Amino acid sequence: MTTTTTTVSDKQTVNGVDVPALLQTIDAIRADPTLAQFKFRASDMWLGCGLNRATVGSFEGANQQHTRPVSFQYHVDEPPVLLGSDKGPNPVEFAIMALLGCLTNTMVYHAASRGIEIDHVESQVEGDLDLHGFLGLDPKVRSGYQEIRVKLRVKSDADVELLKKLAQKSPVYDTISNPVRIVVDVEKM
Amino acid sequence: MTTTTTTVSDKQTVNGVDVPALLQTIDAIRADPTLAQFKFRASDMWLGCGLNRATVGSFEGANQQHTRPVSFQYHVDEPPVLLGSDKGPNPVEFAIMALLGCLTNTMVYHAASRGIEIDHVESQVEGDLDLHGFLGLDPKVRSGYQEIRVKLRVKSDADVELLKKLAQKSPVYDTISNPVRIVVDVEKM
Repeated sequence: MTTTTTTVSDKQTVNGVDVPALLQTIDAIRADPTLAQFKFRASDMWLGCGLNRATVGSFEGANQQHTRPVSFQYHVDEPPVLLGSDKGPNPVEFAIMALLGCLTNTMVYHAASRGIEIDHVESQVEGDLDLHGFLGLDPKVRSGYQEIRVKLRVKSDADVELLKKLAQKSPVYDTISNPVRIVVDVEKM
Repeated sequence: MTTTTTTVSDKQTVNGVDVPALLQTIDAIRADPTLAQFKFRASDMWLGCGLNRATVGSFEGANQQHTRPVSFQYHVDEPPVLLGSDKGPNPVEFAIMALLGCLTNTMVYHAASRGIEIDHVESQVEGDLDLHGFLGLDPKVRSGYQEIRVKLRVKSDADVELLKKLAQKSPVYDTISNPVRIVVDVEKM
């Protein structure tokens, strides 16, 4: 009967996440830890003033090279008040946009692995930045964000404290909350 | 003569950056430090599994609200190996893409303010991520990036060490290199 099939399918997919596939991934990593190693990449071409064309294409993971048939390309720019032409968000806006997607997906995947259903998520983020840092006008002011505030609005029966804890397993949350070593190499063309 | 006009224009704009406007911005902030305060924002709507529609629209800065006539919207997704439908880069890819644009723009703007000409910049970034962290399989492994490596290729007469120093004033570089307080609030709909 189709009813049975539907029920099985509903159980397998929680929040749109294929839970058996997620559990298989975990088992595969337990058996071969090298499958957990990923290298993500991006490239960028400066187009003048604050305008850039950024590209996200291939990455490495689970001992394979993953190449998209067509790379994703975006304009990164600065708004007029920061002397740019506003053809795209600026880098600090892309950074907090990444944070929202990561908190959401992390909460959704971890909830799915526990059988917790989530019906809807919408979120907002705001970050404080003081140009005294970037412009070098005050050595006590950092150039990056001073504080970032996120609000996640979730439709689910689960406890909000649990949902928050799941979201905070987010890789971008960790990347921004805690120090990451960045090696910058500049070479002449 | 048009030659004179061209020469003046060349001096005013370095690397495409309107240098008099940049110096005026610095003077204005010295006179009124509140002009340096910015609040950047993004929002996100979850569409199921790893797919999100992210929006970047308005921000606050220089004591004004800045609202784009049309907001920028992007798909944030996960690739098939991470159980998504690959309709956009994933959040950790967007994060390192933001880093490249920020290092580039910061180098370009600071070079312009010093009269240093830059003819071309292209860049690549790679970041290491170990899924043992995200999946909670090893408490010693962080969920975020373990190391990020950037290569900036620059066409300029300037010294590479100076260019690197200028790039490292980047707000996203600081945001990722050093800890940022992130306040996460989860509420039910």
